[in-house]
Amino acid sequence: MLSKNQIKLIKGLSLKKNRTQLKLFTVEGRKGIIEFLNSDFKCRSIYSTDPELFKREQVSVISESDLRRISQLKTPNKALAIFEIPKETIVDESGLIVALDDIKDPGNLGTIIRLCDWFGVTEIICSHQTVDCYNSKVVQASMGSLSRINIHYLNLEDYLRSYSNPIYGTYLKGVSIYQTHFTMQGILLMGNESNGISQSLEALVTNKITIPQYVKVIETESLNVATATAICLAEIKRSI
Amino acid sequence: MLSKNQIKLIKGLSLKKNRTQLKLFTVEGRKGIIEFLNSDFKCRSIYSTDPELFKREQVSVISESDLRRISQLKTPNKALAIFEIPKETIVDESGLIVALDDIKDPGNLGTIIRLCDWFGVTEIICSHQTVDCYNSKVVQASMGSLSRINIHYLNLEDYLRSYSNPIYGTYLKGVSIYQTHFTMQGILLMGNESNGISQSLEALVTNKITIPQYVKVIETESLNVATATAICLAEIKRSI
Repeated sequence: MLSKNQIKLIKGLSLKKNRTQLKLFTVEGRKGIIEFLNSDFKCRSIYSTDPELFKREQVSVISESDLRRISQLKTPNKALAIFEIPKETIVDESGLIVALDDIKDPGNLGTIIRLCDWFGVTEIICSHQTVDCYNSKVVQASMGSLSRINIHYLNLEDYLRSYSNPIYGTYLKGVSIYQTHFTMQGILLMGNESNGISQSLEALVTNKITIPQYVKVIETESLNVATATAICLAEIKRSI
Repeated sequence: MLSKNQIKLIKGLSLKKNRTQLKLFTVEGRKGIIEFLNSDFKCRSIYSTDPELFKREQVSVISESDLRRISQLKTPNKALAIFEIPKETIVDESGLIVALDDIKDPGNLGTIIRLCDWFGVTEIICSHQTVDCYNSKVVQASMGSLSRINIHYLNLEDYLRSYSNPIYGTYLKGVSIYQTHFTMQGILLMGNESNGISQSLEALVTNKITIPQYVKVIETESLNVATATAICLAEIKRSI
């Protein structure tokens, strides 16, 4: 059985300020937990309703009602683990980097993390206003991919200003991605869901790129940021 | 002020059986409503908290509390309109068709509708087990694109069996989309979020295609169905 203090601590991790202070976050469900256990992330504890689910010392078997108390899912999924948030590392600039300018939706960030994992992009840099990648909805949507990607929160303007390779920013009006020469080293910059790329970053974009639209009458509506990232990453990886 | 019967009827449209019986569905928010007003969809009524929002006869001005009662959104967005579900039409086979095999998530269907709109695909065919496109979450996620796309629910197996052009099915192991010859007329078949394409449809797929993965160690995890659709549509439209 979980103590009141344990429940309070674990539930508290739904808030960013507590995650930041304690340097801890939660992962739910067997599959996701195993992906983090197989990564460099340090596991602090595992709570499971099924003693057979994991063969590790630190598993605490808890009741279904206790799991419901600590879970952030509508339908808790047998297990919840607490992992340490890793120390901030230096951005590896040897390949393609994805930069996110104030992405707010946890589902979008999770999907983009999963895409980067698929396309072999190991580095994501995020503005400080981008949703926290250790938010449980992001962890859930990233389907374990978060355990393999390095995510850095930083002052995006300062970073882009000091970056010396091409910065490809996605716009509704730009050069077609099929007519753009992409380089092995570069940044793919994706903007906020409603406002796109901030004006303060626009001057730092070296290549304005666009995904061609195939309709006679151009509608103003843009693509969802995660699907736009998917198309750009696929094309960059195909062409370089 | 709305009568109890009106509230009951509108709220009832959150259920598929009522939508099917009454041939009606709801659209929320000014922007989405206007896109449907500008389409061939027939508007039955509009309820708005702001009399200035629409300049049309059939607008009923209601209170914010009434809007909260009939809205399916957590944060109601000023207006709700009721539109008629159009009569089933014949599938236009003159171009590319997207086929969905039991897509369950409303957000995924909405995103795929938006993608089809972007890429000029006017026809989507769905298995009967695919989530209803007039589900309010689908309407919301499609951002008005639903008003421009023809969606057909049918027996997918029968349809594919009688179809004479190529059927491109997405698999984890298939021919790279970059090595596939796509034709102007054809079907792009996308499978269920968890199980992929049904076994019963596999024999009907003429081309098994795959999105190349760019990592050294192949992870078993697949891409999200909406992002996979995005990448396939972009590549098909680029290459044909």
